[in-house]
Amino acid sequence: MEPWHTSLVSAEATSLRIRGYDIAALMQKRGFAATVFLLHRGRLPTAGEERLLNGVLVASADHGAGAPSCAAARLVASGNRQSLSAAVAGGILTIGDAHGGAGAACMTMIASVIARARDLDLTIQEAADRLVDESRSAGRRVPGLGHRVHTVDPRVDVLFSMARDAGIAGDGVAAMQALEVAVRSRVKPMPTNVDGALGAVLFDMGFPPEAGMLLFIVGRVAGLTAEVAEEYAREKPMRIKFAVQYDGEPPRELE
Amino acid sequence: MEPWHTSLVSAEATSLRIRGYDIAALMQKRGFAATVFLLHRGRLPTAGEERLLNGVLVASADHGAGAPSCAAARLVASGNRQSLSAAVAGGILTIGDAHGGAGAACMTMIASVIARARDLDLTIQEAADRLVDESRSAGRRVPGLGHRVHTVDPRVDVLFSMARDAGIAGDGVAAMQALEVAVRSRVKPMPTNVDGALGAVLFDMGFPPEAGMLLFIVGRVAGLTAEVAEEYAREKPMRIKFAVQYDGEPPRELE
Amino acid sequence: MEPWHTSLVSAEATSLRIRGYDIAALMQKRGFAATVFLLHRGRLPTAGEERLLNGVLVASADHGAGAPSCAAARLVASGNRQSLSAAVAGGILTIGDAHGGAGAACMTMIASVIARARDLDLTIQEAADRLVDESRSAGRRVPGLGHRVHTVDPRVDVLFSMARDAGIAGDGVAAMQALEVAVRSRVKPMPTNVDGALGAVLFDMGFPPEAGMLLFIVGRVAGLTAEVAEEYAREKPMRIKFAVQYDGEPPRELE
Amino acid sequence: MEPWHTSLVSAEATSLRIRGYDIAALMQKRGFAATVFLLHRGRLPTAGEERLLNGVLVASADHGAGAPSCAAARLVASGNRQSLSAAVAGGILTIGDAHGGAGAACMTMIASVIARARDLDLTIQEAADRLVDESRSAGRRVPGLGHRVHTVDPRVDVLFSMARDAGIAGDGVAAMQALEVAVRSRVKPMPTNVDGALGAVLFDMGFPPEAGMLLFIVGRVAGLTAEVAEEYAREKPMRIKFAVQYDGEPPRELE
Repeated sequence: MEPWHTSLVSAEATSLRIRGYDIAALMQKRGFAATVFLLHRGRLPTAGEERLLNGVLVASADHGAGAPSCAAARLVASGNRQSLSAAVAGGILTIGDAHGGAGAACMTMIASVIARARDLDLTIQEAADRLVDESRSAGRRVPGLGHRVHTVDPRVDVLFSMARDAGIAGDGVAAMQALEVAVRSRVKPMPTNVDGALGAVLFDMGFPPEAGMLLFIVGRVAGLTAEVAEEYAREKPMRIKFAVQYDGEPPRELE
Repeated sequence: MEPWHTSLVSAEATSLRIRGYDIAALMQKRGFAATVFLLHRGRLPTAGEERLLNGVLVASADHGAGAPSCAAARLVASGNRQSLSAAVAGGILTIGDAHGGAGAACMTMIASVIARARDLDLTIQEAADRLVDESRSAGRRVPGLGHRVHTVDPRVDVLFSMARDAGIAGDGVAAMQALEVAVRSRVKPMPTNVDGALGAVLFDMGFPPEAGMLLFIVGRVAGLTAEVAEEYAREKPMRIKFAVQYDGEPPRELE
Repeated sequence: MEPWHTSLVSAEATSLRIRGYDIAALMQKRGFAATVFLLHRGRLPTAGEERLLNGVLVASADHGAGAPSCAAARLVASGNRQSLSAAVAGGILTIGDAHGGAGAACMTMIASVIARARDLDLTIQEAADRLVDESRSAGRRVPGLGHRVHTVDPRVDVLFSMARDAGIAGDGVAAMQALEVAVRSRVKPMPTNVDGALGAVLFDMGFPPEAGMLLFIVGRVAGLTAEVAEEYAREKPMRIKFAVQYDGEPPRELE
Repeated sequence: MEPWHTSLVSAEATSLRIRGYDIAALMQKRGFAATVFLLHRGRLPTAGEERLLNGVLVASADHGAGAPSCAAARLVASGNRQSLSAAVAGGILTIGDAHGGAGAACMTMIASVIARARDLDLTIQEAADRLVDESRSAGRRVPGLGHRVHTVDPRVDVLFSMARDAGIAGDGVAAMQALEVAVRSRVKPMPTNVDGALGAVLFDMGFPPEAGMLLFIVGRVAGLTAEVAEEYAREKPMRIKFAVQYDGEPPRELE
């Protein structure tokens, strides 16, 4: 019977290599974000790419106990009470088209704006205007804009400026910002949300659209594991909660 | 109805804070491993703690397409074909007592060796010897020793030496090494495996036992997302595989 | 490499047999509940066993959109929006020690009451009294008694009377009722809940304890699939709900 | 905050009703398949509908330890070892477009054949011929035909003849059989598989397309729970299997 062919990892009696690199070297000389990049792209990141990917993962890490993925993880933890991994998995299942997965849709949309600008010899703003006009006619929402909670999403400008500082911001960031401009003038002001910013910078880093969801999952699992640990530590089993109250540290500054 | 109380994240209209720190500052000045530490411990890591946690996460990242969690993720991807998160979740569910979760059992065992040494005024080696004797009498296996694939696990010495270099190695590493010595002289040579090494250094970093499983999950999701992406890219749907063949990069050196 | 050995199903080019029986015969001459029994027990049920198992499965089918498993399935459906099976799986993950799994704990407890009565030559009531006394001393709750919502659980008496009518009620039902009596006189009135009734009748049918959870899952998936279908049909994506309002059929009678 | 609106279940202090019917009456006078029908359709089934739905659920129950959903459930059980529900959920996640979900695609295709026949005043065979021609031109496979294991799937004829006996077989069964004829004459003989048969009879029973996947899940959970119980009972933890060997009952006849 035919085997799985894989180019990711080779495990032998005395060695373990990721994409050809000795795991011991990766542990000592590089770190986790570089390994995430290596696994998904087949090469190690530059210093700028590594900083930006760290920004993407931190931006995705958590959004409070009431975010759908966090609430689902806590609900599973509250009933299951046997398996930590079941609770984390329950949170991950909640990620898809309507939660955490819009980054992938944004990357596809950004690619289409750029292709249209190139093929029809338009500016990126003109191509974005046309796409928004068509979406309005078809009654489709433009992904990556607007947020349930944030009027200004604090993660967006940081991602864009980190991408610029690293010399990575390119057509992807330009296209997303052109889409925000087009929607503001044609529909109403809807600021770019974290999905849009994340999709734009991942596009400019050369990731394929599905990475918009997969890297969000990598980041979010940091928060999901902490939410599950807190649920076990602080809540009684079989307790369905219907609101969230923050009682942790007040605002504090990084040194 | 009573709300969830949480000390992890506060999300407001224009701000998002993790344990009180502005997310923008965490994205720009720190990175993902530091945020994982912050979420789980409530404070930022020292430089040594951050390096060591990076080592732990990289050590957990992947072990090849045939590892149970990776094989399960690929099997789900092969049948489901609709949801990337379902495939990643399928891999995470495979993590538990018998796969990826032994780090937690090792941390509990290490704590018991250390408590016994202190309470009975024994050396750590004497306490480890007694625990191994009792395990043998009771027919219990000692967790954290031996591996299906590796005669020498390349991740173990690195974790221990990283912990020493960071000045973090303490009673936890000593207890795990004493257990290896005790089993070698009483049963047969069984080298410490990655679960044992991971449990020992997380113990010395001050993490609670459940972190032995939760941080393994954070690391492994890097590999699971890449395995799922490769399954979609390279394999036909509904293809059950029964072996693994590596066809990626040959061994190469980090610069 | 060694194969999985299985005694459940054999699939060949022109035949499919469950426990040796042709699937076509099972489809035409028996039905789903009989097949569930056959898969789990290796033989077909008597008419009485089949009726009682149907009662158990219907009793487990659903408990409203706010039950933890149903709420988790809806939350996953609301965010994921790609995979129906992911939402059903999210609901199933919520089932464990604190939700839907107490039937298994009850079966173990019932077995212990019966063994103690036999070994110490006690009546079942005397054995139940002692177990409750010990649980009180140890500060342990007795599973299978009391309910968040129901003062009288409408499923309990029906399961007991169906078991009696089928000539199946035996020591299991007696032990559970003795435990209710013991708790009423020693602690406070706490009526047997569905977990207790389900555990008692499954015990008397000869199922092992884990069936207390597995058969609850079989029943509950009827409700979970319907909850997921209703969530897709009636709710917008990414909608976190915090209460449940029933707006369906008013009470009606079976003809 | 807005509640979930639901028409499925109302739970109060002393009553529990499904679609308005008292659960006690459903347990005593009807059974599980009728309750599945009631939950999904809002009314109780006729005797013929109930028999046919039982046939559908039994046909979906299991296909051997090597079927993707069963293999995934066993893999999760082998690694997790803490939570039975996690293993069942792992199996369910495997169900989707490429495994167990083709019934939904068949129902959509059947609806399109019937609509085309009606709109263009064609026979169902003519409409099926055209759809197959278009699929060939577009390089699309026609779902519901052909099987990895079975040259003749023993479940197909039984489902069709049960549907005829119950007076339920109609345009859905006719359309599926016309598609088989069209493919045989235009491509090659590919007998209708269980997805196709299941989709056809569910269509004729009036179920919406998503029921093609959801009812397969209800049936399959019977097998998944038994596979998980067998894995725990017969296999050691952390055992990855690469083939299946049946060692159960030889063929036997129903009395």
